[in-house]
Amino acid sequence: MLFHVEMQVNLPPDMDPERAAALKADEKALAQELQRAGTWRHLWRVVGQYSNVSIFDVPSGDELHDILSNLPLFPYMDIQVKALTRHPSAI
Amino acid sequence: MLFHVEMQVNLPPDMDPERAAALKADEKALAQELQRAGTWRHLWRVVGQYSNVSIFDVPSGDELHDILSNLPLFPYMDIQVKALTRHPSAI
Amino acid sequence: MLFHVEMQVNLPPDMDPERAAALKADEKALAQELQRAGTWRHLWRVVGQYSNVSIFDVPSGDELHDILSNLPLFPYMDIQVKALTRHPSAI
Amino acid sequence: MLFHVEMQVNLPPDMDPERAAALKADEKALAQELQRAGTWRHLWRVVGQYSNVSIFDVPSGDELHDILSNLPLFPYMDIQVKALTRHPSAI
Amino acid sequence: MLFHVEMQVNLPPDMDPERAAALKADEKALAQELQRAGTWRHLWRVVGQYSNVSIFDVPSGDELHDILSNLPLFPYMDIQVKALTRHPSAI
Amino acid sequence: MLFHVEMQVNLPPDMDPERAAALKADEKALAQELQRAGTWRHLWRVVGQYSNVSIFDVPSGDELHDILSNLPLFPYMDIQVKALTRHPSAI
Amino acid sequence: MLFHVEMQVNLPPDMDPERAAALKADEKALAQELQRAGTWRHLWRVVGQYSNVSIFDVPSGDELHDILSNLPLFPYMDIQVKALTRHPSAI
Amino acid sequence: MLFHVEMQVNLPPDMDPERAAALKADEKALAQELQRAGTWRHLWRVVGQYSNVSIFDVPSGDELHDILSNLPLFPYMDIQVKALTRHPSAI
Amino acid sequence: MLFHVEMQVNLPPDMDPERAAALKADEKALAQELQRAGTWRHLWRVVGQYSNVSIFDVPSGDELHDILSNLPLFPYMDIQVKALTRHPSAI
Amino acid sequence: MLFHVEMQVNLPPDMDPERAAALKADEKALAQELQRAGTWRHLWRVVGQYSNVSIFDVPSGDELHDILSNLPLFPYMDIQVKALTRHPSAI
Repeated sequence: MLFHVEMQVNLPPDMDPERAAALKADEKALAQELQRAGTWRHLWRVVGQYSNVSIFDVPSGDELHDILSNLPLFPYMDIQVKALTRHPSAI
Repeated sequence: MLFHVEMQVNLPPDMDPERAAALKADEKALAQELQRAGTWRHLWRVVGQYSNVSIFDVPSGDELHDILSNLPLFPYMDIQVKALTRHPSAI
Repeated sequence: MLFHVEMQVNLPPDMDPERAAALKADEKALAQELQRAGTWRHLWRVVGQYSNVSIFDVPSGDELHDILSNLPLFPYMDIQVKALTRHPSAI
Repeated sequence: MLFHVEMQVNLPPDMDPERAAALKADEKALAQELQRAGTWRHLWRVVGQYSNVSIFDVPSGDELHDILSNLPLFPYMDIQVKALTRHPSAI
Repeated sequence: MLFHVEMQVNLPPDMDPERAAALKADEKALAQELQRAGTWRHLWRVVGQYSNVSIFDVPSGDELHDILSNLPLFPYMDIQVKALTRHPSAI
Repeated sequence: MLFHVEMQVNLPPDMDPERAAALKADEKALAQELQRAGTWRHLWRVVGQYSNVSIFDVPSGDELHDILSNLPLFPYMDIQVKALTRHPSAI
Repeated sequence: MLFHVEMQVNLPPDMDPERAAALKADEKALAQELQRAGTWRHLWRVVGQYSNVSIFDVPSGDELHDILSNLPLFPYMDIQVKALTRHPSAI
Repeated sequence: MLFHVEMQVNLPPDMDPERAAALKADEKALAQELQRAGTWRHLWRVVGQYSNVSIFDVPSGDELHDILSNLPLFPYMDIQVKALTRHPSAI
Repeated sequence: MLFHVEMQVNLPPDMDPERAAALKADEKALAQELQRAGTWRHLWRVVGQYSNVSIFDVPSGDELHDILSNLPLFPYMDIQVKALTRHPSAI
Repeated sequence: MLFHVEMQVNLPPDMDPERAAALKADEKALAQELQRAGTWRHLWRVVGQYSNVSIFDVPSGDELHDILSNLPLFPYMDIQVKALTRHPSAI
């Protein structure tokens, strides 16, 4: 099942740079692992924003929540989730 | 260049059914033509809404506007456009 | 999989009463059929509003969209969908 | 009487982990006690959010307020309450 | 139980004047009957708006919904309902 | 003259408990004094929120502002004020 | 007592021109009468909008509501009212 | 003086095509005349929207309002105006 | 040229009282100087809010921005600016 | 390709003045360099706000994101990006 997920990251600008770098590195590693597994299907950066638009392919909402809520940046993110389905005009 | 486009369709419920069907058929034909051309890269239906989330791959905003503003359903749609760029964690 | 769905109904007040009554009767029949099937798990009326809060139990978003988009009142409704998952404190 | 309650939890990310864990443990214990009592009828996690959707069955608003305002996480929550009533199509 | 209810009336300006007058007369009669019964406790007009703020005293949400959804102007109103409880500083 | 006032209190959760308690005690004392004087006509707690809905009876806006801006909790409150007038259906 | 009032006029573009002109003429006559009486203290047009910002000087909200609700354009207006009081820095 | 103006055009989709075409032609002629006069300094189309972003260079708000309120499409437009001034980093 | 300016002041409640008092004193002195100069034409307090509504009479936006951005409280304020023009019904 | 970008700057008022001055100086230097390069086509200050409206001329969204995300003030800014295209009435 496909989900459209928008993640706005709100790291405090005065956060300890090392801590921020570590969080981002962990986030990147996990994101790339999930992309290789085909779960995190698409990951795009929104121009001008510290936010992304992603498409996830998961068996159900349970797995999606596990993934999102365990992302290192989760406590610093505003996340919007939309369930997707096949469009009648899609080829 | 990639664009994320959300299209909410607001056809008047009391529209002449034949006119509505014709509009939708024209929209579908054009959408499928653009998908085959690789321009309309992704087209998903948002669950529970008469709206879609799409990803367009176009040379620039000019082409995207030509496409969107000439969609048969354009006069009946609320459209939100976001420019996308490569995410640093994308593989 | 569970979905939380809010449906705000916006029937035009000056709609032909018989047409409105027919739509509502069809909606009620379909809603009760889906409740008996265990798909439409919960259906509550929000006090003071012509809207409901519902919980659906469906295999995935595809089925939910089929159900919602084929509801007789669908063209007259604003629908908000949230995917649900098990709460860690739920017994 | 049924109430639909949405609780968005906004714990500061830099909160002392032990304090946060203690708050969550107290919240879980109280939530499970209220579920066993049949007061907290339903408790679901919203996918991708640190928030829940709940259904409470209480004699009146007074009891609901006592419950909500005494939840350990209450000071850190945005709460939206809707009174519910029987839907004419509910079986 | 007390409920705080805000009713914004949106009668179409080009509505048949007689029909509008009849609706308003029926609304007034019902409102006054409910006030005499002590159910509709307070009814104030918001300055500059065709809207009111009201306080209802009802056994539960069920009765409140019956009252509101049967008001002659109900199809033309945006209604916001808040459940109230005793304030700890109230004398 | 009547005013409808909504006060949302946003005390920082990590405020010194004694300071918070002192503020609340002062607020309560002043609120009760104003209620006895008939100025603060009604004071209700909104279920699930640290907020109240109040009705003030004051000679004019000047007095209302003096009262509100001198409430101990004023610096921590979001306040919405609506001027009220007699409703044509009020008995 | 002073009130700050913002009036957004939403006349249907396809309204009968004569009817619209008559409404506007009546509105202008009443507005000028109230300005001469010192009640409608200030009346400014917001650049780029069919809306105005006004300052009214009235004994209380009751008079203001009488004035506003009897304006010929009242049924076509969105009105926002703010009560004003003397600013401590005003000379 | 420079003003930033955003104009969202909301022509009814079922408007008489000839009337719509005439309005647009008049609008285009006036817009081009004002551009040649150096008043309408910049005029861009927002991708995916029937709206524009414009920069006007006018002696004051009075002239800007005359221009905007006399645009043929004015009755069908939502207009947002921002006054601009020289940026300290502008070269 | 006239501008309508709304200023919402958001001083941190836990700011050093002396610093806050000094800021307010400087703000008051500057505001009164500008009022005497006829630039800050009107200054009213919004009832129940730490905010004001003001009318400025300045040659253009440049002067208004100089004034506003140099107000001692500027870093703590949310400011909304509307350009005004003569109303056709103003006497 | 042209982009319309609005940047609202939210520097904490209690930031170390030297650090703030350094950030602003770096931002100004970079902004002027980009203006000289013709990339940052227009840069205006919005009257009354610590925000700007800018027009960028870049090959695509990728370059725009590189520019914006590397601005010294980027972590302190709310940024809104709109893709622009040629207006049919532009001369």
